Amino acid sequence: MKKLKREPAVGAARLPKRSPCPVAHALDVMGDRWTLLIVRDLFLGRSRFRDFSASPEGIPTNILSDRLERLLEHDIVEQIPAQDGTKRLAYRLTKKGQSLGPLLKAMRDWGLAWDKSTRVLEAKPADSQPVS
Amino acid sequence: MKKLKREPAVGAARLPKRSPCPVAHALDVMGDRWTLLIVRDLFLGRSRFRDFSASPEGIPTNILSDRLERLLEHDIVEQIPAQDGTKRLAYRLTKKGQSLGPLLKAMRDWGLAWDKSTRVLEAKPADSQPVS
Repeated sequence: MKKLKREPAVGAARLPKRSPCPVAHALDVMGDRWTLLIVRDLFLGRSRFRDFSASPEGIPTNILSDRLERLLEHDIVEQIPAQDGTKRLAYRLTKKGQSLGPLLKAMRDWGLAWDKSTRVLEAKPADSQPVS
Repeated sequence: MKKLKREPAVGAARLPKRSPCPVAHALDVMGDRWTLLIVRDLFLGRSRFRDFSASPEGIPTNILSDRLERLLEHDIVEQIPAQDGTKRLAYRLTKKGQSLGPLLKAMRDWGLAWDKSTRVLEAKPADSQPVS
């Protein structure tokens, strides 16, 4: 078993609970720079590994794999067959994952209010055609 | 100047913007396990370094110093004279910091809903007497 670093970015969800505080619990699950971007992508209609990988932030694939695994462990996402006729798998939000909507909205609103250079990303799965 | 690691937990706020997405911006500022716990403490009435340090999650002092510096850089907190008659400084939320209330509330509600072992921390500055 790999030894955990003192403040791991990866595997934090497997650490003992830091306190009974619900905010601390939420941060134990998603307190990093990437996890909520994958959840955002799922809300935007993206569902496959390559969709998440193609998002503008350029998540490294090893981090993407780790975060998807953690989201599965925490029942925030579940795997489903992809809709492209292949045997590949895709991801979708569970009820628990859907309930992150207000949190993401609050984060989006805060970002929009305080950084005028930001703008809301449009829902656009990787396969969709550009809107003419 | 120290060289930044590929996925820094510290100093991320000084990295170039990853995308125009407001969620990504918010995560650039507070996408780690600790920053929002300090903001939570400020909402709970804690204001001094030692108050934050005494919180149940046991934030290491070097991480606390770094996160307070970042919160100051981003105008989320400001320094004020401590109210204890000393020349020490304390911290309080700016308007920008206060506007994180809905985000923290969403995070708290999500934690409470999905981890039944969590409970809301009571506002209790380190100096206050236990309620009898």
